[in-house]
Amino acid sequence: MANSPSGDSMLDRLVRILDSFDAQTPSLSVSSLARRAQIPKASMYRLLDDLEGHGLLAKDKNGQVSLGLRLWELANRSAATVGLRKVALPFMEDINQLLGQNTQLSMLHEDEVLIIERLSRPGAVVNQASVAGRMPVHRTSMGMALLAFSRPEVIHGFLERHRDLMNATHPHFRAEMAEIRRNGFASMDGYIDVESTGAAAPILDDSGYQLAVLSVVVPRDSGLLQPAAMALRTASRGISRALGYYRER
Amino acid sequence: MANSPSGDSMLDRLVRILDSFDAQTPSLSVSSLARRAQIPKASMYRLLDDLEGHGLLAKDKNGQVSLGLRLWELANRSAATVGLRKVALPFMEDINQLLGQNTQLSMLHEDEVLIIERLSRPGAVVNQASVAGRMPVHRTSMGMALLAFSRPEVIHGFLERHRDLMNATHPHFRAEMAEIRRNGFASMDGYIDVESTGAAAPILDDSGYQLAVLSVVVPRDSGLLQPAAMALRTASRGISRALGYYRER
Repeated sequence: MANSPSGDSMLDRLVRILDSFDAQTPSLSVSSLARRAQIPKASMYRLLDDLEGHGLLAKDKNGQVSLGLRLWELANRSAATVGLRKVALPFMEDINQLLGQNTQLSMLHEDEVLIIERLSRPGAVVNQASVAGRMPVHRTSMGMALLAFSRPEVIHGFLERHRDLMNATHPHFRAEMAEIRRNGFASMDGYIDVESTGAAAPILDDSGYQLAVLSVVVPRDSGLLQPAAMALRTASRGISRALGYYRER
Repeated sequence: MANSPSGDSMLDRLVRILDSFDAQTPSLSVSSLARRAQIPKASMYRLLDDLEGHGLLAKDKNGQVSLGLRLWELANRSAATVGLRKVALPFMEDINQLLGQNTQLSMLHEDEVLIIERLSRPGAVVNQASVAGRMPVHRTSMGMALLAFSRPEVIHGFLERHRDLMNATHPHFRAEMAEIRRNGFASMDGYIDVESTGAAAPILDDSGYQLAVLSVVVPRDSGLLQPAAMALRTASRGISRALGYYRER
């Protein structure tokens, strides 16, 4: 790969540029973008012309830069998430209507929980997740359910990288994992919002390992946790079956 | 931008690589990918390592290459579509339930209709659209509604680029545009599927120009077209208002 004088590649720069935008900052001035992406302003202007030409970035009439529609199109036409999302969406609508709470579909990604889809509900309890946002594994029912149903080497690798954190926050980690596997779902109280409890059930492949996780947040002490968990487990099996996985459990 | 010996830039290559995947071919062997993207195989292997390292592409254990989850994440965190989609989704569910038909949200993009979101319905009539897929403007109610409510310079530019096609397929183009604007929606019979009719109503900004379009496909001659159009127009106004546009029309 051709490198710039400073030694980082075009691709490094592109990823840093794309990574400069998020849900809170969907558009940036060229100067802010250059600063965030750590690219000299003169190079940034040249790069921007190229990226705009390819439709990966767009510049509005006030000079604010945002992600281009072409980038969205390329990334959404065939991502791993597309098939899963399409199959999961009707089941998520069922959960959303039956429980009257926000429903999420998430995957384990780079040791974090990546939100793939979210259906919101007016009046539902507070929930900080947003689509394509990330949440920490150790603080969410989604993360713990994903981990419990991961391949042993994935769990092992995660623990290697986050041993101190997990020892501090989940002192009985092995027992907890075993319980989640036994129950078929994970729940977690009040880490993110003291008024709420998260429940999460894994969507499993033929080998019984997680592909993704379905979750809701319900008001704490509402008695909704067990029914919510059962709804999630039922929907997760439906999704798994609709994806072509048929194993009896 | 640093160029390869053949003179095309890293960015040209990257876009051709991403463009090699679509809904029908979500994964490719390295050889097929190199061929599709018109990149020499040796260069392709080097590029692939880099792209995989950044999470933009992923390679499975059988050597099949697909788009990486990181690419999806970067493109979906802050795209122009994200806010629109979030606001539109509850209205789309209403339409989906009230009419019992597939409901779509689309935008005008590079002279084509880009599908942003789609809610499907079991038993709904045939519809070829898929999320992040494209449809031709001149053959869809979505396209004609988007065009009719575009700024004059956008309509002019489109006509300049597609005059022969539009003359052949829409000989009374001006009258048709005027009628769509008067009715507040576009409909089109049986182009894609002779059994169906599409109806589409634009989502407008403060100036009365389209931001996007909401559409359904209903069975032809079912008497559903007028009610569907009214549902779409109602929902489109709700979306426009929820986005912060308040103009009376």
